[in-house]
Amino acid sequence: MPEYTSAPLIRVAEQFARLPGIGMKTAQRLAYHILALPTEAVEEFSAAMVEARSSVRCCDVCCNFTVGSVCPICADERRNAKIICVVESPRDVSVFERTGGFDGRYHVLHGLLSPMEGTGPDDIRVKELMKRLSGDAQEVIMATNPTIEGEATASYISRLVKTLGIKTTRLAYGLPVGATLEFADDVTLTRALENRNEI
Amino acid sequence: MPEYTSAPLIRVAEQFARLPGIGMKTAQRLAYHILALPTEAVEEFSAAMVEARSSVRCCDVCCNFTVGSVCPICADERRNAKIICVVESPRDVSVFERTGGFDGRYHVLHGLLSPMEGTGPDDIRVKELMKRLSGDAQEVIMATNPTIEGEATASYISRLVKTLGIKTTRLAYGLPVGATLEFADDVTLTRALENRNEI
Repeated sequence: MPEYTSAPLIRVAEQFARLPGIGMKTAQRLAYHILALPTEAVEEFSAAMVEARSSVRCCDVCCNFTVGSVCPICADERRNAKIICVVESPRDVSVFERTGGFDGRYHVLHGLLSPMEGTGPDDIRVKELMKRLSGDAQEVIMATNPTIEGEATASYISRLVKTLGIKTTRLAYGLPVGATLEFADDVTLTRALENRNEI
Repeated sequence: MPEYTSAPLIRVAEQFARLPGIGMKTAQRLAYHILALPTEAVEEFSAAMVEARSSVRCCDVCCNFTVGSVCPICADERRNAKIICVVESPRDVSVFERTGGFDGRYHVLHGLLSPMEGTGPDDIRVKELMKRLSGDAQEVIMATNPTIEGEATASYISRLVKTLGIKTTRLAYGLPVGATLEFADDVTLTRALENRNEI
């Protein structure tokens, strides 16, 4: 930003620029917007963030974000406790919940294995998952993203889970619904062919 | 967001969604990011906003955002006080300053005339501008955006300024540098032709 710009404005822009997907130009626009808001609105925004960060913790069972000690999903007796869907982050839980098609429970890893970034099994919630599985779990669905880290994590955890004699599954690969063959990449198309179903 | 989502998380997402250019999906992503940050980082972000909002005020002379009573540009004796560039918002000042090509001073209106939204001359900093001009101003450059509101505001203010016998100018319309004729809209092309210069 130009040198004359006041320091507090720059500091706010820098904070916004640290958020994922927000570049310096957008951050500056947001900082100017914040300064033009009524003081109460800024205080409300600020308090909402601090309050959320201090009141939200990880569920004792599934490690998803929650306010109490056990999250509403783990506390819900109607949800099938025998099927556990393992995801990378709390956001993924909300993605599955939006579909409304899954009535099992979740386990949030809070990260993926990544030797490049030095993230090992002790840095994500693998131990917590294994502890849960000593119960009466029947199936563990590996629902990490189809990236290199996601695959490696799914593969690592499924090996551990299999030693307990529990069935492990992986999300299906295939064509996205509504997509055209023309724009599908080779790997996806190969997988879609391999995993074809009888109709 | 799914109904089980914790209330503090939703409140943070709602706050982000109020920012310009941030939709609900991005806001949710940002809210999840905030919850995964260290507490100190969230407090720092939050404090930066509140502090900026409380410490930054409008310059007594040009109405641009500043920390003291007079902004660094108005306080800079090297800047030509006889040429005043009138802009809509503090952001526009930083846009001009980035070019480094203007050595006059600014006047920030903090809005544009808009009968549709009920914004009249008393709702923007027109009076403050007229007060300044009683000094030794030689030229007022109307640098509002080339939109309907921007044009109306430029036209209204230039009429007032002319009554003081001060020269008023408007930013040039023409082809953006690097653009191709093919993609220029008709109005822009007509203006570019009208305002052609001898080479």
